[in-house]
Amino acid sequence: MLRVAVAGASGYMGAELLRLLSVHPEVQLTAVTSERLAGERLDRVFPHLRGLSGLTMSELDPSRLADQADVVFLALPHMESQRAVPILRGQGRKVIDLSADYRLRDAALYGTWYKADHIDAVGLAEAVYGLPELHRKAIATASLVANPGCYPMGAVLATAPLIKSGLGRGEGIVVDGKSGVTGAGAQGRKVEPMYLYTEANENVQAYGIGTHRHTPEIEQELSALAGQPVVVGFTPHLLPMNRGLFTTASVPLTKSAGSGDLLALYREFYAGEPFVRVVPEGERPTTRAVVGSNFCDVTVVSDPRTGRAVCVSALDNLGKGGSANGIQNLNIMMGWDERTGLEAPPVYP
Amino acid sequence: MLRVAVAGASGYMGAELLRLLSVHPEVQLTAVTSERLAGERLDRVFPHLRGLSGLTMSELDPSRLADQADVVFLALPHMESQRAVPILRGQGRKVIDLSADYRLRDAALYGTWYKADHIDAVGLAEAVYGLPELHRKAIATASLVANPGCYPMGAVLATAPLIKSGLGRGEGIVVDGKSGVTGAGAQGRKVEPMYLYTEANENVQAYGIGTHRHTPEIEQELSALAGQPVVVGFTPHLLPMNRGLFTTASVPLTKSAGSGDLLALYREFYAGEPFVRVVPEGERPTTRAVVGSNFCDVTVVSDPRTGRAVCVSALDNLGKGGSANGIQNLNIMMGWDERTGLEAPPVYP
Amino acid sequence: MLRVAVAGASGYMGAELLRLLSVHPEVQLTAVTSERLAGERLDRVFPHLRGLSGLTMSELDPSRLADQADVVFLALPHMESQRAVPILRGQGRKVIDLSADYRLRDAALYGTWYKADHIDAVGLAEAVYGLPELHRKAIATASLVANPGCYPMGAVLATAPLIKSGLGRGEGIVVDGKSGVTGAGAQGRKVEPMYLYTEANENVQAYGIGTHRHTPEIEQELSALAGQPVVVGFTPHLLPMNRGLFTTASVPLTKSAGSGDLLALYREFYAGEPFVRVVPEGERPTTRAVVGSNFCDVTVVSDPRTGRAVCVSALDNLGKGGSANGIQNLNIMMGWDERTGLEAPPVYP
Amino acid sequence: MLRVAVAGASGYMGAELLRLLSVHPEVQLTAVTSERLAGERLDRVFPHLRGLSGLTMSELDPSRLADQADVVFLALPHMESQRAVPILRGQGRKVIDLSADYRLRDAALYGTWYKADHIDAVGLAEAVYGLPELHRKAIATASLVANPGCYPMGAVLATAPLIKSGLGRGEGIVVDGKSGVTGAGAQGRKVEPMYLYTEANENVQAYGIGTHRHTPEIEQELSALAGQPVVVGFTPHLLPMNRGLFTTASVPLTKSAGSGDLLALYREFYAGEPFVRVVPEGERPTTRAVVGSNFCDVTVVSDPRTGRAVCVSALDNLGKGGSANGIQNLNIMMGWDERTGLEAPPVYP
Repeated sequence: MLRVAVAGASGYMGAELLRLLSVHPEVQLTAVTSERLAGERLDRVFPHLRGLSGLTMSELDPSRLADQADVVFLALPHMESQRAVPILRGQGRKVIDLSADYRLRDAALYGTWYKADHIDAVGLAEAVYGLPELHRKAIATASLVANPGCYPMGAVLATAPLIKSGLGRGEGIVVDGKSGVTGAGAQGRKVEPMYLYTEANENVQAYGIGTHRHTPEIEQELSALAGQPVVVGFTPHLLPMNRGLFTTASVPLTKSAGSGDLLALYREFYAGEPFVRVVPEGERPTTRAVVGSNFCDVTVVSDPRTGRAVCVSALDNLGKGGSANGIQNLNIMMGWDERTGLEAPPVYP
Repeated sequence: MLRVAVAGASGYMGAELLRLLSVHPEVQLTAVTSERLAGERLDRVFPHLRGLSGLTMSELDPSRLADQADVVFLALPHMESQRAVPILRGQGRKVIDLSADYRLRDAALYGTWYKADHIDAVGLAEAVYGLPELHRKAIATASLVANPGCYPMGAVLATAPLIKSGLGRGEGIVVDGKSGVTGAGAQGRKVEPMYLYTEANENVQAYGIGTHRHTPEIEQELSALAGQPVVVGFTPHLLPMNRGLFTTASVPLTKSAGSGDLLALYREFYAGEPFVRVVPEGERPTTRAVVGSNFCDVTVVSDPRTGRAVCVSALDNLGKGGSANGIQNLNIMMGWDERTGLEAPPVYP
Repeated sequence: MLRVAVAGASGYMGAELLRLLSVHPEVQLTAVTSERLAGERLDRVFPHLRGLSGLTMSELDPSRLADQADVVFLALPHMESQRAVPILRGQGRKVIDLSADYRLRDAALYGTWYKADHIDAVGLAEAVYGLPELHRKAIATASLVANPGCYPMGAVLATAPLIKSGLGRGEGIVVDGKSGVTGAGAQGRKVEPMYLYTEANENVQAYGIGTHRHTPEIEQELSALAGQPVVVGFTPHLLPMNRGLFTTASVPLTKSAGSGDLLALYREFYAGEPFVRVVPEGERPTTRAVVGSNFCDVTVVSDPRTGRAVCVSALDNLGKGGSANGIQNLNIMMGWDERTGLEAPPVYP
Repeated sequence: MLRVAVAGASGYMGAELLRLLSVHPEVQLTAVTSERLAGERLDRVFPHLRGLSGLTMSELDPSRLADQADVVFLALPHMESQRAVPILRGQGRKVIDLSADYRLRDAALYGTWYKADHIDAVGLAEAVYGLPELHRKAIATASLVANPGCYPMGAVLATAPLIKSGLGRGEGIVVDGKSGVTGAGAQGRKVEPMYLYTEANENVQAYGIGTHRHTPEIEQELSALAGQPVVVGFTPHLLPMNRGLFTTASVPLTKSAGSGDLLALYREFYAGEPFVRVVPEGERPTTRAVVGSNFCDVTVVSDPRTGRAVCVSALDNLGKGGSANGIQNLNIMMGWDERTGLEAPPVYP
């Protein structure tokens, strides 16, 4: 059994990791940390885990974690993972980081978008972006994997075949992201007014217009696929539901193509992928059909009137958009079947 | 007191008309029709109206309606209003039509988008598009007003100042619409699987991609504002909430402009408008803040990275996106203060 | 115009008062207070009021309030109203208190249930319990009205005819209350974990079992109706919705009676009441049909198997269960039609 | 691998069975039936199962099912299971029936509550009520198990220790049940107006007052525990959430006892039970903490004022209140660890 620890386990990303790891057949959960809740029993922090764990939250001590675990998941706030990672890696541990700290290849972007300098240039240089559908081989041999943000996961999976093929233009792309409340800044179970039931219920709003930090992540991955700079206008939205992330991307086409052609391209691109489902023509991705799982459902429609393709994807922000994808990365790093521990179908309805 | 009738009163648009008309100080509700529920007491059809009305649903008989009312609201399915309108107008009645039948100036578009020929060319030629912020003067003297669709209302109010000023380009515009379930095809209280609680709850999806019938309506109004053809890529979405419609429009700019400049433009454009609120910089439109009212809250953000403006609006699809706007049109047609019967603040939370 | 002030206007009860008072034809809103938000513009605190008010929150200074207003609504936390009331009344002002401070006739109960001594015995002795259906005459001449709690309103209106008639026994009554999140302790827009969207959504729970402070209030009113002590087992619940309070009361019958008999009793008891609707046999009260209004819908069913009646009521906890009922009290105190400012039908759906 | 079939797979109970059986390590799903959807691919009927099953819905033919499967789950409408069961059992198959057809020991009760005569007296006589916490031994050797209704499961687990011990009286018990929409009559994905999103959302109502068919089931099990007739007043409610069933039972005590004593009794009664969690004092059962699992969380509070205990339980109506409990029964019948295939923690949030 592989010994696994979760640092930053008090948020929703952490909770989902614990839910999935607790039934992963190759894994033993050996430590959980939380600054805020150190000393608390895990099954008091998370009532759904009553009776399912004897672990107690401890403070984050990377050195001790390295003793306790072979692989460490970090679900820490941005700019905190990079303090722990060098210590963990110095002691030979593998790390899967769910924060943004190791996602951007260009360190300067942290200054621009996160208003802080990166302090682990070595780690950043070696980290692999943990999007299995694009970087499976590199993940397999990586010791540090940067799990993608939920919006980038949705946006990249929705558009990758188009961009990679050259059919999608790198300019004029507009991405509209829609997230349930466990994404959208509330992963940490932060107690802020806009996340109150009374305020978020029966409500929808855009936020972070033009400034959301997932933007450079989307552009990085699409640019790599295109082989040239891709610029994306990205607007995230907060929706009244717990889980689920829906992406609607409008991509100008470099030449005309029908929906059937585009779908064929998508099916080929994702052939053999265990967790991306290109839905049959006439059906629609919905978050309802993926919640609780690592699936991402996608489709694409050609709009000849505008010369654009509309690419949509649906995933669970805590699933393929977070913790479940982290488990898929773990499986790849360990050489296990990628489905291990992720076989359960989505929870419907 | 003006005698007013509502035809097609069994749906949610009808219900909202009844709610508003029942407290309008200048109006007496004299007749309500519903094919499906003819003979039923209004307060059995709508339990919230228990004890508030002695009216009974009748079958639609335009001639009789013309006897019973001075002004008739039509909340009928598309392609049915045009059968009733000529009769009502022939008897000198004014009509406010909430269907799509008289919204498109170009009759040929009905063939393209609604797959049917229009049968009332005369009415179509005389109808005024009932968007007071753009057509107030024409509404004031109109005998037939075509109340806008909910998505067009959101899209046009979000972008009109930009398009009118020439700062917004007529190409490359991407509009993402997000509607609660009382919009999005369920106005008629249709009992279809996708509108079941269990299916719509905790779910989001796009529908009608590239084919939604509100598209030509948006383009018609923006083209008129621009003085040249405007093409829009529009994608509607179904969200888990009863009321509320949120629009996110990405518009390429013809020259660079800061958010402050754009906001100033919006404030000037909407100066004096009783129901459009340009929200203060730093605040965000939310559907929560407009539900139950005729308000539309808007803002605009410049995104210099993409050379685009992100224009957002929030309204109640049954309010400014439907019935309440119909009352505003009535007020204008009658020469009353536009706020008459619409003074109640939004219902929060 | 009557000058009216609202103290404690930053919570949901305050917000609903402002929504209703702003369109009350006989009232001018002259002052609003909030300790937490003193100095803030009202329309920044409540985005739905954008453009609808020029008022600014001030700190609570009862003396100054007495200068500014003829009648003062208090939506303060429990145990704080009793500090302000003597000053306001000393300056001749009428007060409608939405807190619990003046609801219990027996001062000793404050010690038992609120763990504090009451400091205004004079006020307490003169206060009238503001449940118009039971105390209309006393309210008409009162200078201090204690607006009922939301659960007591639901429980008393559901059972009063039965208790008053002697058909209901005073022992063995079980009351199950179900409240949306704006009731249930979150009136003050308190930012607590259990009220987070992610926690309250798709969730139901009982709280305050055997200890909820509305219990003595229910017993006081039912005992007065019965002319002898009535004991009630009361359990409140938190439901995933913004507004709405549903009460299910099981009352042992002193002699057998059919549902038809009981309904006749209810219809007679509530005959002429403008805001209590005994629903027709075969129909069911739902919160959906009363939200946004001052209505309370009730019904009663005899269960001969158990020798009990099941009494149910549905109301809006911010409406008949709070602010709207406060306006009804104001109307009675001023000698106005009770419906004044409360004519708008419920908001459906 | 045990070959298992699901008859009546098109509803939500069926869908949950499929979700759980598809990852059960000892089971192979060999057939699914649906009258309505015969001929449809399973992964078109249930989009969340896209790519996860190659099965196609067939019509119900009990004889053929007996060839295809060793154990058959029946998720059929009431009064239809009893047509299929004799055939299946005649061919030596074991049956787990999720309908009400074999739950009531007294055949006459079907006439009273279901308005129909039972046609399989033999099966009814041999069937075991599939509530493992009460009937584990009988289930282990049964060939026909009647899976309990969701409300009875909640009511019986909440009160069993009290009734069994004699501390709870058999008279004056009041049970208030609160169900999400997948229970409460909508298991079959019926498309009825009251289950529309727009109608059920932001709404709560009681239904079937005094007449709900789960009443005799609750009484049967509690009477058996008490060794004398127990009468229960039961009122079910429809709540705005997809999954979750919460029960609040008020039980008169035969002698006074504190909450601590009662809790000790509960802990002893449920000691060793893998799926019933008596929550620690000071904590509260919530449906949020059990959704997606086979857990039932319970607690009990003594209310000395009324001489009653308030017993509450939370479960997932499709989980412990239905399909997951069916799997637990299967595990017991096969002699497997009861947790097999049910190890996944609840889905939070």
